[in-house]
Amino acid sequence: MSEAIQDIVILGTGPAGLQAAIHSARKGLNVLVLGKNDKSSLWWAHIENFCCTLEISGEQILKTGKQQAESFGAVFVNEDVLNITPPDLMTPDGNVYTITTETKVFKTRSIIICTGTTRNKLGVPGEKDLFGKGVSYCVECDGNFFRGEEVVVVGGESAAAGGALHLAHLASKTHLVAKEFSFAPELMQRLKDAGIIIHEGVEVKEITGKSGVDGLVLDDGSKLDVTGVFIELGAKGVMSLGAELGITLDESMKFIETDKQQRTNVPGIFAAGDICGPPLQMAKAVGEGCVAGLAAAKFVKKI
Amino acid sequence: MSEAIQDIVILGTGPAGLQAAIHSARKGLNVLVLGKNDKSSLWWAHIENFCCTLEISGEQILKTGKQQAESFGAVFVNEDVLNITPPDLMTPDGNVYTITTETKVFKTRSIIICTGTTRNKLGVPGEKDLFGKGVSYCVECDGNFFRGEEVVVVGGESAAAGGALHLAHLASKTHLVAKEFSFAPELMQRLKDAGIIIHEGVEVKEITGKSGVDGLVLDDGSKLDVTGVFIELGAKGVMSLGAELGITLDESMKFIETDKQQRTNVPGIFAAGDICGPPLQMAKAVGEGCVAGLAAAKFVKKI
Repeated sequence: MSEAIQDIVILGTGPAGLQAAIHSARKGLNVLVLGKNDKSSLWWAHIENFCCTLEISGEQILKTGKQQAESFGAVFVNEDVLNITPPDLMTPDGNVYTITTETKVFKTRSIIICTGTTRNKLGVPGEKDLFGKGVSYCVECDGNFFRGEEVVVVGGESAAAGGALHLAHLASKTHLVAKEFSFAPELMQRLKDAGIIIHEGVEVKEITGKSGVDGLVLDDGSKLDVTGVFIELGAKGVMSLGAELGITLDESMKFIETDKQQRTNVPGIFAAGDICGPPLQMAKAVGEGCVAGLAAAKFVKKI
Repeated sequence: MSEAIQDIVILGTGPAGLQAAIHSARKGLNVLVLGKNDKSSLWWAHIENFCCTLEISGEQILKTGKQQAESFGAVFVNEDVLNITPPDLMTPDGNVYTITTETKVFKTRSIIICTGTTRNKLGVPGEKDLFGKGVSYCVECDGNFFRGEEVVVVGGESAAAGGALHLAHLASKTHLVAKEFSFAPELMQRLKDAGIIIHEGVEVKEITGKSGVDGLVLDDGSKLDVTGVFIELGAKGVMSLGAELGITLDESMKFIETDKQQRTNVPGIFAAGDICGPPLQMAKAVGEGCVAGLAAAKFVKKI
C-alpha cells in the first residue's frame, strides 16, 4: 500500500508507455508505470521499420526504454491493474484516482492509458452467435445483468481475476477458467477467499445455448452450467476501462478517442499508442506517448 | 530533370521525414526524399529522451534512418526545394505537383512537408521596428509590393536563392547577402544570369529607416539603398510554403495545421514533425512521420 499521491500513473510498459514515462519524468514529476514488461506485443517482435535503429529485438527495445525511463526517475511496478476508482470530489483528496493492482493500491492525479490492444476473442463455437445473449467482453458493462446467476470468467491474467472479483459480489456462483494463471499469489488467495471456483489447466471448447448461454464445455469434458460467459483475455480491455472511467471510445468501440494532445474526454486521463487506434506502429506509439507524457505533466502542474 | 511522376515527395531529412519515408516506401510506393541530411537540427544534438535508445548522437540517428529508408527503396536527393507549383488541372497530368530544387525538377502526386523549424530572425537593429514596413519573412507573400524597387534577400541557403530569383522578375535591382552560400554551383550561376548582385562573406549590421526601410548596412561598412529586406534563413519557411500551396497555418502563423492523419487542408499535402508545432521532440516527429507516410500512401493508392 502506498499513501503518497502520484502525479502520473502510466498503464502499460510498451513503447507508448515508456516514451510517456521518459518525457513526464524528465519534467520532474512523480511517475509510476504499471504493467508487465514482457506482456507488450513488441516483446517477441523484431523491429525494422522504426526510425532510426536497424533491426533490433522487441525485448531489447523494451528493456532499454525501461532503463531510460528509470534513469529519469520513473518507478516501475510489475503488476497489472484490477480496477480504477474515479475521484470522489467530496473527499479531501479531491481530484485523485485510486488504482488497485494485483497486490497494491495507488492514488494519482492523472493517468495515461497505454495498454495497447490484445486479442479478445476465444474463437470457440457458440462465442459469436451468443454474443450479447450471455457472452460478454466487459464485466463492468454487463455484470449487473447476471445478478444471482452462475457465471464464468475466461482468462488467466489480472483483468480476468479482477472481473471475477467484481462478479463474485453479484453472481450466485463465479468460475474462473484458464490454461494457466499469471498473476500474483496474493491475488489468487483473494479469489479463493471470495469463493470463486478456480479451473486451472483447462481450455474452453464450446459455449452452448440457443437463445441464450446455457453452459460452457471445457476440454477435459466437464461442463459448467453458467448463463453468463465473460471473456477477459490479456490486460484490462478498452471497454472495461471506458465503462469504469467514462471514457469515450471511437465508433468501432475498440479504441479510445483522443484529441491531438492525446487527451480523452475525461480531464486528467490521457491515452497513447495502439489503444488509440491504427496505424498500430511503434513509431506512432512513441510519438503519442511523448505528447501524452508532456500533456499530462502540464495538466498536473496546473492543479 | 526527371520525367517520372513520384508517388510521394518528402521534404526534409530529419526524423519525421525519415520515418515517413520508411513507412511509405515499405508500402511499395515510389518515394523521393529532398533536403540536406546535415541540416536537421538533430545533426549536432545528443539524444537521450527518445525511446528506446540510450544516449546517441543526432548524426548517427540520421545516418541510420537514411540507411533504413533506402533499404526499403526510398531515394534521397541532397538538394533543397526552390519552389513548388500546384497541380494544373487543365493538363493531362492532372493532380501533379511540380517541385523545382537547386538543379532538378520533379513531379509528384503527393507531398509530405517535414522541414522542421528554423531560426528566421536576424536579430539586428531595425528588423523588429520595420517589420511590415519593408522587412518581410516571406517573398511569396510580400514580393509583389516591391515591383520596380530595389530589394535585398538575406540568407545563404536555397530558400534565399529561390526568393532572390522570384524577386528578380519584379524588382528593379535584387541583392543577395550572406556570410557564405551553401547551395549548388548551378544555382549560383542562375542567380548571376538573372542579374542578382551577390554579396558573399558579409553580414547584416543594421536595417535603417523611419516609417519604412531606406537601407541595409553591412559589416564591411557598405550600405545598400534598398526599400525591401527579405529575410530567408534556413530552409524554405512555413509562410512561403503556406502561401505557395494554399496551406492553412495555425494561429501563431509559425506552424502548419494538420488533422490526426497529418493531412493539411490541401488534398495530397501532408506535414509532420516540428513544422506542425510543439512539442518539438524527436519522438513526436517520428510518430507524425509514420502517420503521414501511411496516410500519403493511402491517398496515392486511391487515385
